[in-house]
Amino acid sequence: MTTVREIRLKSRPSGLPTAANFEMASVDLAAPGAGEVQVKNLWMTVDPYMRGRMNDVKSYTPPFQLGKAMDGGAIGEVTASNDPSLKPGDLVQSGFGWREGFNAPAASLQKLDPKGLAPQTFLGAAGMPGLTAYVGLLKIAALKDGDVVFVSGAAGAVGSIVVQIAKAKGHTVIGSAGGPDKIAFLKEIGVDHAIDYKAEKDLTAALLAAAPDGIDVYFDNVGGDHLVAALNAARPFARFALCGAISVYNATELPAGPPNLMLMVGKQLRMQGFIVSSSWDMMPAFLSDLAGWVKDGKVVWKETVFEGIEKAPDAFIGLFTGENLGKMLVKLS
Amino acid sequence: MTTVREIRLKSRPSGLPTAANFEMASVDLAAPGAGEVQVKNLWMTVDPYMRGRMNDVKSYTPPFQLGKAMDGGAIGEVTASNDPSLKPGDLVQSGFGWREGFNAPAASLQKLDPKGLAPQTFLGAAGMPGLTAYVGLLKIAALKDGDVVFVSGAAGAVGSIVVQIAKAKGHTVIGSAGGPDKIAFLKEIGVDHAIDYKAEKDLTAALLAAAPDGIDVYFDNVGGDHLVAALNAARPFARFALCGAISVYNATELPAGPPNLMLMVGKQLRMQGFIVSSSWDMMPAFLSDLAGWVKDGKVVWKETVFEGIEKAPDAFIGLFTGENLGKMLVKLS
Repeated sequence: MTTVREIRLKSRPSGLPTAANFEMASVDLAAPGAGEVQVKNLWMTVDPYMRGRMNDVKSYTPPFQLGKAMDGGAIGEVTASNDPSLKPGDLVQSGFGWREGFNAPAASLQKLDPKGLAPQTFLGAAGMPGLTAYVGLLKIAALKDGDVVFVSGAAGAVGSIVVQIAKAKGHTVIGSAGGPDKIAFLKEIGVDHAIDYKAEKDLTAALLAAAPDGIDVYFDNVGGDHLVAALNAARPFARFALCGAISVYNATELPAGPPNLMLMVGKQLRMQGFIVSSSWDMMPAFLSDLAGWVKDGKVVWKETVFEGIEKAPDAFIGLFTGENLGKMLVKLS
Repeated sequence: MTTVREIRLKSRPSGLPTAANFEMASVDLAAPGAGEVQVKNLWMTVDPYMRGRMNDVKSYTPPFQLGKAMDGGAIGEVTASNDPSLKPGDLVQSGFGWREGFNAPAASLQKLDPKGLAPQTFLGAAGMPGLTAYVGLLKIAALKDGDVVFVSGAAGAVGSIVVQIAKAKGHTVIGSAGGPDKIAFLKEIGVDHAIDYKAEKDLTAALLAAAPDGIDVYFDNVGGDHLVAALNAARPFARFALCGAISVYNATELPAGPPNLMLMVGKQLRMQGFIVSSSWDMMPAFLSDLAGWVKDGKVVWKETVFEGIEKAPDAFIGLFTGENLGKMLVKLS
């Protein structure tokens, strides 16, 4: 019998989540049943989209249940197996995050070959966030030669990959983020213009100073004022990939939409929302391209790591207060 | 020497234009010079997009100039010619509206073969508004089999053609318009559900009552609350063609955007603004399709006609107070 700790949803937040919305509990794991394996989690991910799952509303992913362990991406190691497809020591990727370990049918897990990368990379640059960047930029925004690209949340897990893919393809890239550490990171990864939105009173003016002729592509991780500025600075036929809107995830009332939205008509803009799970089919192409970019030193990444399951709520809350540079992760073992 | 009257922009409106923003003047036309013709206008069009041209701002069409005749689409008859390509009696289409007659280079005019249609049809169903409907529905919204279609401003020059093209292609169509006359017209042209927005407190509820499973395509002529309702009622992967926003053209302050815009992410919606002049190349295909629909009785149209150049400002202002059923036109001769 093994005892593991897990994080459960204790209450649904109103606005920014607090520690009181979570509770930690211990559960005992029996030996795995037929067809099952037991896994010790090494890493779990916290991602902004999980905020929506804390509300009791229907969306593209089901809400977390009160009193139950939360879930999300995790990388673990098989510690006991009752199925021939996996053996102790195998690395697996699962949706059983927010817990130190679990039993699950072997068929519900994906065996991970890290191909020389650190295993947790598959929760970040080589995982869902990286694929989100790739899909949003290449498929949704339909990046084409000569496009000037604007990325908000550019120092984050998704945004920093967007920046680097666009740079690897030879584009002029403007990235926005908050605070000097993030701005320094943006410069490290090669943005042409970094906008510290916390230091700017007028984002439209800042964006037009960086891109006097306007932008062709906007990758939106933020919403709010950033979207307003992007509409103002958009060139005719610009394409916006709407990935998320971290500025409003914790809003307790619906925020006003961009007052300049109707610029879309005269400028003939296209705006498209997307969720990465509709484009899993692009994962092989992405991993193949990524391998080349990594080899050539064109794509790098940062991680912000909290240690211990008890820190998972803090790591998650930190996403909304901007504490992460690159991918926010929790190291569990 | 011929004397003709024309309408000039006297002052730029703030909010809804009034008669005081226009002035009528008489001008004398000399005999046409070499390569020129003289034209007597029979019909002129007033269209919502002209409101933007009354402001002194850069947009996709240049602003009208103070003290100068306004311009826009017109159908006229050549009365004198100094160019071999046109002869007296020929019908021509031009951009020289808002005046009873003019001299112009023959090369700047388009000879019109009405093919059995009334000439003014080429300012409406068989002209820019009709093509706008066709482009927006088929190219921008990428209408596909089984789509449920919502059209706002559905009794207008563009909207009524959108409704009928969608019906001709076998779709379920919900149209909104204001007042019983327009609702009766919508039923005549075959909408499945007509929403009188003036009689509804909650447009989202009205739209979901008409389309309980949601909508796949929204053709937006109105903006404002209609766009909010369409976002609420959109099914995953719905496409919105943004054609105009008559609800806000006269706003003196930028209106709040839709507070539910971020539904675009989770529902993976696409929203695209367009102006018809980017798709003139689709005119031959449109006119060919239209001929078939007209022959089969699948597309009809209404006109609201003001008589005399002196009524042109009233006709124009009437667009924003909803006085037109179908195409608003001014008969000049």
